Amino acid sequence: MRATYLHGEGDIRLADRPEPTVQHPTDAVVRVTAACVCGSDLWGYRGVRGPGEPRPIGHEFVGVVEAVGADVRSLRTGDFVIAPFVVSDGTCAHCRNGVQTSCVNGGAWGSTSRSGEDLDGAQAQYVRVPFADGTLVATPGAPDDALVPALLTLSDVMGTGHHAAVAAQVSAGDTVVVVGDGAVGLSAVLAASRLGAGRVIAMSRHEDRQKVATRFGATDIVTTRGDEGVAEIKELLSGTGADAVLECVGTKESMQQALDSTRPGGRVGYVGVPAGGPELPVQQMFSNNISVAGGVAPVRHYLDALLADVLDGKLDPGPVFDAEYGLEQVADAYRDMSDRKVIKPLLRP
Amino acid sequence: MRATYLHGEGDIRLADRPEPTVQHPTDAVVRVTAACVCGSDLWGYRGVRGPGEPRPIGHEFVGVVEAVGADVRSLRTGDFVIAPFVVSDGTCAHCRNGVQTSCVNGGAWGSTSRSGEDLDGAQAQYVRVPFADGTLVATPGAPDDALVPALLTLSDVMGTGHHAAVAAQVSAGDTVVVVGDGAVGLSAVLAASRLGAGRVIAMSRHEDRQKVATRFGATDIVTTRGDEGVAEIKELLSGTGADAVLECVGTKESMQQALDSTRPGGRVGYVGVPAGGPELPVQQMFSNNISVAGGVAPVRHYLDALLADVLDGKLDPGPVFDAEYGLEQVADAYRDMSDRKVIKPLLRP
Repeated sequence: MRATYLHGEGDIRLADRPEPTVQHPTDAVVRVTAACVCGSDLWGYRGVRGPGEPRPIGHEFVGVVEAVGADVRSLRTGDFVIAPFVVSDGTCAHCRNGVQTSCVNGGAWGSTSRSGEDLDGAQAQYVRVPFADGTLVATPGAPDDALVPALLTLSDVMGTGHHAAVAAQVSAGDTVVVVGDGAVGLSAVLAASRLGAGRVIAMSRHEDRQKVATRFGATDIVTTRGDEGVAEIKELLSGTGADAVLECVGTKESMQQALDSTRPGGRVGYVGVPAGGPELPVQQMFSNNISVAGGVAPVRHYLDALLADVLDGKLDPGPVFDAEYGLEQVADAYRDMSDRKVIKPLLRP
Repeated sequence: MRATYLHGEGDIRLADRPEPTVQHPTDAVVRVTAACVCGSDLWGYRGVRGPGEPRPIGHEFVGVVEAVGADVRSLRTGDFVIAPFVVSDGTCAHCRNGVQTSCVNGGAWGSTSRSGEDLDGAQAQYVRVPFADGTLVATPGAPDDALVPALLTLSDVMGTGHHAAVAAQVSAGDTVVVVGDGAVGLSAVLAASRLGAGRVIAMSRHEDRQKVATRFGATDIVTTRGDEGVAEIKELLSGTGADAVLECVGTKESMQQALDSTRPGGRVGYVGVPAGGPELPVQQMFSNNISVAGGVAPVRHYLDALLADVLDGKLDPGPVFDAEYGLEQVADAYRDMSDRKVIKPLLRP
C-alpha cells in the first residue's frame, strides 16, 4: 500500500509499505477513504523537526473497516468509521473523564503510543487502529459520499473548534471572538454559532476564509490584528471586550491578541498548539479575571453529539475543505496549503 | 479618629485624622465595628513597597452606617453593613457582569480609585464609602455580636475562597485539593465543602490550621509539598490527580504545585495574588487540558448568597479569626500574623 512520509523540510514522499494487519485482538484495520493535511503537519514540513525522520504523517481519516480482532465489540467489517486524531483505549480513568487525549495507552497517529506501539500515519491507504472500540466511531450505515468532507472534519478540526468553544463556556447570547482563520478557527466560528453565540467576530485577512466564516455564522469580520485589532473589537462590543475568545493559532502573539480582546471576567478557550512562547501572563489574567481553558482537543468525547448533528443536516463543517487531491498528489497538497493557496486539502487515497 | 498607616517595612502606626464626612451624594460614612489584617497587607509590611508611604491600610471591614448622601437608596443611618475589599459603582458593564473588581469607577481601600478618589483605609474607626449602594451590603437588622467574625470574612477571605472554588467549577462529588492554609485557603476548604466536593485535601504543615481545615470539611491533610506533595496527592486519588485544585498562595511554586496536582481535564481556581512569577506554563496546561481560572475575587457578586447562608447558620467561616486586638494594638496584630503566631487577627476599633 501507499503511505505518506515526511523526510525533512519541504520533503513529503509516498512509500510502498506492507498492508497492515490485525496484531492484537483489540485492533481493527481501516481502508482510508478520505484523509487530509492539518496545519500542525506543516510544522514538520516547514522544518520544525519532529521525533526523527523519515516518519509516517497524517492524523485525520475516515474509512471502511477491513478487518477486526477477536475482542473488538462495537465494529464489524464494512462499517464506515471516523478516527479521532489520537488513539484511546476508552477504559482508563482519563478516557472515562472524557479526556481521551490523555489516555494512558493512547497517542497520536504517526507517533509512538504511551503503551509503546508504533502508530501508522493517516495519509495512507490503510491504517491499523489499536483499541478500535475506544478509538473509532462508526456511522449508522454507509454515508452518502457528499457527507464525507463533513464527517472527516470530526476527526480533528470540527471537534477541535468545538473544544475551544466548550472550554470558553460559550453559551446563548455570548459575544465571541475567534482568533485564527484556518480550518480550526473556521470550525470554531461554526461551533460558537451552534452553541447560540449572539455575535461571532472572526479575525481574518483572507477573503476566501472570510467567506467561509460568514457562511459558518460570523456576524462581523475584523481584518486588523494586534492593538489595532483589539481596538476594533472593543469598538464593536461597547468598549468592554468579548465574553469568550477562541484562540486557534498557538503563537504568543495570537494568545496575547486573545487575552487583550477578552472582557474582565471573560474566558479564553485555546486549541492552537503552543508554539511561540511557553508562558501566559498571569498578572493580566488575575487582575481581569480572565480564564484560560482548552488544550489538545479530546474530539472522541464530542464525536457522538457532533456526528448526530451532521447526520441530521444541522451541522456542515465540510466547506473547510476547499480542494481535493489524490494521494499521489500529497506533496502538491502540502505545498499548496503551506503557500496558503488552499485552506485545507482533502486527500482521496 | 484613629486610622492605621503603613510607614515602611515593619512600621505600622496609628494616626489621628479628621472623621470622614459625606462628600458626594452617593457616599456613606461607616463607623467600623470590626476590621482585620490580610495576608496581602503583609506584603507592604514585609518591605515589598507599595505606591508611596505612609499610606492608609486595611481593606476589610463591617460596621454601622453613620451618614448617607442624598442619592443613597439602599441604605439608612444605623444599618449594619459589610464592605467588600473594593469599591464598585454597581452600574457599569463590569459590575453588571458580576466582575465588580473591574468596576470602571472602583478601586481597593487605601488606594486611589479609577475615578480618581483617594479611598480610606479600613483599619480605622470610620471609613467614607463612595458608591455606597454599589459597594455595601446591609444585613437585615443588627446581627448578634457572635456573628461578626463570620460576617467580616464576607468582606474578603470567604468570598475569595469561594471564588477559587467557583472558578475551578467545583461541583458535587469532585475531588479537590487546596494549596495554601492561610485564611483564604481555609475558606476555600469551606467553600469546596459547601459546594458538595466529595473529597477535600488540604495542604498544611501547621497543626492549628489543620484543625480549622478539618472543622471546615477537609477529608485529608497533606503535610508535604513540591514533588513529594504531588506524589502523596496522586496516591490518595488513584494516581490521577484532583478534579479541581484551589491555589490560594500566589507564588510560582504554589501555582506549579497546583498544576502538578490536577488531573488531565481538571481545573485550577486561583486567588493567590501572583507574586513569584509573571507567567504560567502553557505547554503543561495544553497537553493535559488543565484550565486556569480565577483572579482578584469579586466578593460583592457572591455576598448575597454567602450572607444568606451565614444568617441561616449553614455557613460559619468565623473560625479563620483566632485572635482579637483593639485598634491600638494594630502593630502587634501585624507582627503576630507576620510571625505566624496567629492565622488572622480581628481588630476592634
